[in-house]
Amino acid sequence: MMTLRIALSGEASARDYPIVIGDRVLWESRCFLVEACPSRRVVVVSDDRVWGLHGGVLATLLTQWGFVFEPVIVPEGEQSKSLTCLAFLYNAFCGFRLRRDDTVIAFGGGVVGDLAGFGAATFLRGVPFVQIPTTLMAQVDSGVGGKVAVNLPQGKNLAGCFYQPRLVVADVSLLETLDKRDWDSGMAEAVKYAALGDDGLGEIFREPVAESDLTRIVWLCCAAKGRFVMEDELDQGVRALLNFGHTFAHALETFYGYGTYRHGEAVARGMLIASEVGSRLGVSVPGTGAALKGMLDNAGIEGRLTENVDEGVLDFLPLIQADKKNPGGVEAVDEVALVLLRELGDAYVHKIRYEDLVEVFANSRSGLVVDRCLT
Amino acid sequence: MMTLRIALSGEASARDYPIVIGDRVLWESRCFLVEACPSRRVVVVSDDRVWGLHGGVLATLLTQWGFVFEPVIVPEGEQSKSLTCLAFLYNAFCGFRLRRDDTVIAFGGGVVGDLAGFGAATFLRGVPFVQIPTTLMAQVDSGVGGKVAVNLPQGKNLAGCFYQPRLVVADVSLLETLDKRDWDSGMAEAVKYAALGDDGLGEIFREPVAESDLTRIVWLCCAAKGRFVMEDELDQGVRALLNFGHTFAHALETFYGYGTYRHGEAVARGMLIASEVGSRLGVSVPGTGAALKGMLDNAGIEGRLTENVDEGVLDFLPLIQADKKNPGGVEAVDEVALVLLRELGDAYVHKIRYEDLVEVFANSRSGLVVDRCLT
Repeated sequence: MMTLRIALSGEASARDYPIVIGDRVLWESRCFLVEACPSRRVVVVSDDRVWGLHGGVLATLLTQWGFVFEPVIVPEGEQSKSLTCLAFLYNAFCGFRLRRDDTVIAFGGGVVGDLAGFGAATFLRGVPFVQIPTTLMAQVDSGVGGKVAVNLPQGKNLAGCFYQPRLVVADVSLLETLDKRDWDSGMAEAVKYAALGDDGLGEIFREPVAESDLTRIVWLCCAAKGRFVMEDELDQGVRALLNFGHTFAHALETFYGYGTYRHGEAVARGMLIASEVGSRLGVSVPGTGAALKGMLDNAGIEGRLTENVDEGVLDFLPLIQADKKNPGGVEAVDEVALVLLRELGDAYVHKIRYEDLVEVFANSRSGLVVDRCLT
Repeated sequence: MMTLRIALSGEASARDYPIVIGDRVLWESRCFLVEACPSRRVVVVSDDRVWGLHGGVLATLLTQWGFVFEPVIVPEGEQSKSLTCLAFLYNAFCGFRLRRDDTVIAFGGGVVGDLAGFGAATFLRGVPFVQIPTTLMAQVDSGVGGKVAVNLPQGKNLAGCFYQPRLVVADVSLLETLDKRDWDSGMAEAVKYAALGDDGLGEIFREPVAESDLTRIVWLCCAAKGRFVMEDELDQGVRALLNFGHTFAHALETFYGYGTYRHGEAVARGMLIASEVGSRLGVSVPGTGAALKGMLDNAGIEGRLTENVDEGVLDFLPLIQADKKNPGGVEAVDEVALVLLRELGDAYVHKIRYEDLVEVFANSRSGLVVDRCLT
């Protein structure tokens, strides 16, 4: 068992929380859970797939440890990150008579964590929140950092807030049931931290990853993200770099409809597009894109990476104007903030007029993208 | 024009904001508005009544001052403080392409302020927010303090968060169009601050209030509330005293359905019930309830105060168990936290078992309450 502490400045109380990482750490997390939920009354938010696979284990442990709990199960998939499911959660919280010293546990992937976290952040103006992420994506990225949200019809994560958990339990044994695409999706985010300069991860992705690297990958990603979050909790500075690949990813996901791409698959392709932009603008050292592609290959990622990274970009490019990460007043509404790489490990925010970005891709073939995996 | 500054510790940035108070200060607030909304792009959230009465003035001023704005109008009344209206707001924000440096202005009473504030707090994880309260209730109370929320079917303000405005403009000239019941409603909250120990307000309510007292009442209430909020922004300590009268008020409003009571009318009756509880438990100095009633009379409040304050209390008492202000784990789920007065100006939180509270009223006549104003 490895324990990492995320310490946030700002409000004094309860702003320092542990992330427990390792193989079968869920079974050993009684003390942490009791400390995070002293009332021992919890609502567990999960999805039908995760609850079917692992719900029995969690229910048995909670019962053994003297917790009173109620599972609240939403359908698996991105469509559950909605205002409708949020209202469903509120209703369940009321039914359980959840109070301010009771706790909401998110038991699932990024969708469940974001939805349950937003519910916990806003029910009674905030009740304690614990994350038990069950996907690689959630363990390496979305479970840490305190961003919670639901989607609106107009785009991803448009309604949400910042809300820190009291505890994160990242048990890699829960990942055994992941399918290949979800695995790839998480690995893509891990590669992102290597691309942003984490030496330990860079080392790992220099060669094809082995299963024995898993705990170390999760650990290094949480530590890397934790450093960004501790420096810039409210996303007003350096945390923007975590957006590497995400501006294009959000546009891809919206364009193809949630669910066509896994989030990490979209991020993998988004990172390759961003490195292509860097190359065409002449800001990247030659070979940066190839090096990035090499790490994605060593991570074993197959899904939805196109042979020609810029194919079809012009189709979904208009959607990046609606991305919430692009601030700008009435004068600058058409300026886009992209995270680009000067080289691996050296990222920066590049502001570019939308028209100029279109120009970058103007000679690309148009038409829908042809994915290797599109079936 | 009087200006009050609310300074909040915690996060460093933008946590100090002005409240501008006075007669026709809206016309003089250009500099404050420009400072609060540098992009000069704003969505104005209002209700149909307020917008019909005052929308023309605000629209003319914003246009003169070079703002690009869009009004988003919800129906008047408590039923607009809903998840449905929140979704309507999000949709309008998307339509306007509201960005992180644009601003949401709430132009209305407490309902509009709470709804627009929750929308601003959660859209893109937080966009700047300005309050221009148009009711006495909102000017003396709900416009200050950063509590924003919507109601759920199970109760008031159950979904919300803490979110501070960048600016509050309290123009008492906008109150000329208030009807008597809304006037009473605001005055009840003002009397609350006198009951909690504000000497200036205590002085004013010693005699029947005059119209010339108005700016001074708003000023003293904002200053009093500001002191509580600066000391305890997140409502974990002394701010609980602001709940005086509110535990019963929320139960009354839920029992009779939103809209039967104006919020302040319910608070006025709730304060009288609480003082009755203090008297029956023997914790209050004799005459405390009568002194409170005297202030409410001097404030000119007529609406919905019963002759016998405890009539019908047992009918709605069960609803106070669902109030979010009553924390407690599984052991203490039936304990209720009430704010009681030892005497005027000396309030404290009194924890009482629900059963014991029922006992306090056990000898009251049962049956529905007969209000003086119930028509």
